[in-house]
Amino acid sequence: MLAALPPPPYYAVIFSSQLEIPAEGYQAMANRMVELAAHQDGFLGIESARDNTGFGITVSYWRDEASIGAWKQNTEHRLAQEYGHDRWYSAFELRVAKVERAYNQHTSEHR
Amino acid sequence: MLAALPPPPYYAVIFSSQLEIPAEGYQAMANRMVELAAHQDGFLGIESARDNTGFGITVSYWRDEASIGAWKQNTEHRLAQEYGHDRWYSAFELRVAKVERAYNQHTSEHR
Repeated sequence: MLAALPPPPYYAVIFSSQLEIPAEGYQAMANRMVELAAHQDGFLGIESARDNTGFGITVSYWRDEASIGAWKQNTEHRLAQEYGHDRWYSAFELRVAKVERAYNQHTSEHR
Repeated sequence: MLAALPPPPYYAVIFSSQLEIPAEGYQAMANRMVELAAHQDGFLGIESARDNTGFGITVSYWRDEASIGAWKQNTEHRLAQEYGHDRWYSAFELRVAKVERAYNQHTSEHR
């Protein structure tokens, strides 16, 4: 589902990952991660898609870098306590990026 | 599939979209778009995932903003000629972002 966000600038955390299939317990962990993010100060929204090969992209959106840092610390600590290590991924890449402009089907121009 | 990229900084174009299902002709257009991108100066790589509801995220990576601008002009023009309008999407959002740091399973620290 598309996230409804304020106008840029804001930050995006792009998490691309290849899941081991089957990935037992993964969905519960992923749901918990979204729940933790949604309660974090500075969280703006999240978008996620995973195909049937187990490759997925999740992009979470944040007000600023400080809120990403706080979320990272909080989430890693709590998920490690609850689920152990990142045992579901055969490979991943996490990128932190500053969104400078955005447009959609209702805006013909970059805004 | 994960893209193999140089170290940041570089640019990301995050394209999130909801497809109308069925989306006849969509895959041919999407393949053509990737082919056009791959031949564009400044193209670094692309990652894409779409789930079975038709929601997908495609992130293309670029050396700089100028190469995104050139790709956009070239692609929109040629895809419009070849396929007509963006008739496959019920909704989309395109975001241009500067990737400031990245890490993966081989790097414990942000780099």
